[in-house]
Amino acid sequence: MFHPELIEIGRKAKKAARQLAFASTESKNNALIAMSEALINNEQEILKANGLDVQAAEEKGLKKSLVNRLRLTASSIRQISQSLQEVVALRDPVGEGEVWTRPNGLRIQQTRVPLGVVAMIYEARPNVTVDAAALCLKSGNVVILRGGSEALESNKVLTRVIAEAAEESGLPGGCIQLIRETNREWVQQLMRLNDYVDVIIPRGGAGLIQTVVQNATVPVIETGTGMCHAFVDRDADYQKAIAIVINAKTQNPGVCNALETMLVDEGIARDFLPLIGEELKKHHVELKGCPKTCEILTYALPATEEDWVSEHLDLILSVKVVTDLDGALDHIYQYTTKHSETIITEHYTKAQRFLKEIDAAAVYVNASTRFTDGGRFGFGAEIGISTQKLHARGPMGLRELTTIKYMIFGDGQIVK
Amino acid sequence: MFHPELIEIGRKAKKAARQLAFASTESKNNALIAMSEALINNEQEILKANGLDVQAAEEKGLKKSLVNRLRLTASSIRQISQSLQEVVALRDPVGEGEVWTRPNGLRIQQTRVPLGVVAMIYEARPNVTVDAAALCLKSGNVVILRGGSEALESNKVLTRVIAEAAEESGLPGGCIQLIRETNREWVQQLMRLNDYVDVIIPRGGAGLIQTVVQNATVPVIETGTGMCHAFVDRDADYQKAIAIVINAKTQNPGVCNALETMLVDEGIARDFLPLIGEELKKHHVELKGCPKTCEILTYALPATEEDWVSEHLDLILSVKVVTDLDGALDHIYQYTTKHSETIITEHYTKAQRFLKEIDAAAVYVNASTRFTDGGRFGFGAEIGISTQKLHARGPMGLRELTTIKYMIFGDGQIVK
Repeated sequence: MFHPELIEIGRKAKKAARQLAFASTESKNNALIAMSEALINNEQEILKANGLDVQAAEEKGLKKSLVNRLRLTASSIRQISQSLQEVVALRDPVGEGEVWTRPNGLRIQQTRVPLGVVAMIYEARPNVTVDAAALCLKSGNVVILRGGSEALESNKVLTRVIAEAAEESGLPGGCIQLIRETNREWVQQLMRLNDYVDVIIPRGGAGLIQTVVQNATVPVIETGTGMCHAFVDRDADYQKAIAIVINAKTQNPGVCNALETMLVDEGIARDFLPLIGEELKKHHVELKGCPKTCEILTYALPATEEDWVSEHLDLILSVKVVTDLDGALDHIYQYTTKHSETIITEHYTKAQRFLKEIDAAAVYVNASTRFTDGGRFGFGAEIGISTQKLHARGPMGLRELTTIKYMIFGDGQIVK
Repeated sequence: MFHPELIEIGRKAKKAARQLAFASTESKNNALIAMSEALINNEQEILKANGLDVQAAEEKGLKKSLVNRLRLTASSIRQISQSLQEVVALRDPVGEGEVWTRPNGLRIQQTRVPLGVVAMIYEARPNVTVDAAALCLKSGNVVILRGGSEALESNKVLTRVIAEAAEESGLPGGCIQLIRETNREWVQQLMRLNDYVDVIIPRGGAGLIQTVVQNATVPVIETGTGMCHAFVDRDADYQKAIAIVINAKTQNPGVCNALETMLVDEGIARDFLPLIGEELKKHHVELKGCPKTCEILTYALPATEEDWVSEHLDLILSVKVVTDLDGALDHIYQYTTKHSETIITEHYTKAQRFLKEIDAAAVYVNASTRFTDGGRFGFGAEIGISTQKLHARGPMGLRELTTIKYMIFGDGQIVK
């Protein structure tokens, strides 16, 4: 049995979706501008609520990095407000499409329409609350938000402020809703609310995402887990290899497109490992190596199976010496989460084989895996990075928040 | 715990997928031609196995329509063989895509690639076995087939014949596999085989599809259930309305895009219902009506709630008199399975509102719902009709059996 309050949220969402689906771009943009202004006008109240969350998190002894992710400041609120203005500038995919005419005169128009009701399940990051709401709204979708409980007070104020602004600007009530109940049973029910929810997007750690994938009956777009590899081929340009590995590992180690494992061709291991080892040391990166790596770099710690399987999300790099490209492909084939993989080589055919044979959302030659990002791909903004193959793969922008509908214009045609 | 034999099927499939993904269109076409010829060459063996299935089904007292669907003849085998030649002629979507260059010189190429391993779960229709295998193969996907147990002997021979032909022509072994175990537990496990299966496509009745949606952890493309409506507006052309309703209801009542409910504007109910009633009578269509309908057409039986909810898939039509377009929209909104809906009207604005406000894969003006079909849309062939919003909606052709992959060409770019 579903909780009646949850059903009520679903019903309200579905009702709002029916109207929001054909709101004009202009009215959606007006709402985004109103939301952007409302955030600034309610800065004090937002900061106060966020202060409660931060204090409680600190008292609970939450990790410092998580507390920082939770914390809002006047400046970060301005940034969030500004990001809404950027969503205004994005092209609205709703209503775009193509048309063709069949021999019998039927005109078939394939048109982009919103998905309907999107449920976002994410961690305690108040900025995601606003970003997700804005991207869903711009693409004509109603959003049901369920953020991490540590951010509840912040999320309550943020969603109230933006939902009121959207409603006052003329959009239907219920188009942005927050689940205020922190009981986990509600999340379990939300994942099975097929009558009211069209898609669930979980955003966060591997545990959260697996829970959703295992339990949801509503269609899911999996995001995030990135066990990313770089293969330094024997024909690599060492300078490029060092720059790319350092960048992919250290520029922001906590994100899903950061590098986790470096594979080194055994033909250059004795040359290259000491060079990259020095650079990694300068960047305070700890190494977990295979036996050959540990033999060459005596300061590396021995890697366990776990090091090849799981994201470090920290200044730790797993390193393995492989026979050649085939050895690298086999290792990646076994451990990839199909997010982002890169090869560093000057060899044409090896680059082509890597591009072709690696099955991942983003496969790179001579570039950092950190580019897998909606903004860096040129999509303007992203709601997450899909690691599944259905519907969307890689960075998801507004277009990925839509589906299609066939509109067929006839003048009495029947099937013969 | 998964059954070891099922794991073995999955492992073989995944291994084959790694190679099949980049088989050339030429080699895939050669395999399809070999499969087409092998069916003809093994006609006798196929007919013999099918005879066993048909005999067992008749002894079990299976419905005649189901026995007919199960039965193969020399002529239907030739037809199936011919359909493989038609798949040869279809354009291969693999490798198609677009490319753009970022300001930093990174070249991003979005390329279509196969989904990988597709599992088809379907009813006792031997032709689906061959069709599904052909479409999966052409789009570079490995297929695991699980057909209805009544067709097991036929499916065993069919898959052996086509799989051997594909393999002999050079494609990897394991690219077409059949689950020979009829134990339902295997289907349950197949739906949760996330390590080996990329997508599940159930094809069949509402019960089968709901079982898959409720139990699968592998991503699903829902197909099929079509609770299709026609709304005859007060501004309809009666001749068009009669032709469309008769066609949509009677041309092939057992399929998902057949009409199930006719909604009639009360402004024309007394005029129009007797006219269409006469025509429906001539076509032996039984009517289940709302109270107003039964008042006008005294021979109609009273409809129950069930008649608005479930497909008849037979020569039965539910009929309801509604106030106007809004009444029709409300009824459809409540009962639609988002498959195909049509309005018959000469009124511009009402047609536009229907197109915009109905949320379904295919929304028609003045045409029969029976056109919702890959062939009739111009896609050449279809693996099913998606009634969900993620990934694919409406008729699914080869393109819908692919996903994308980003290939990124750099020369040392790092994120700043």
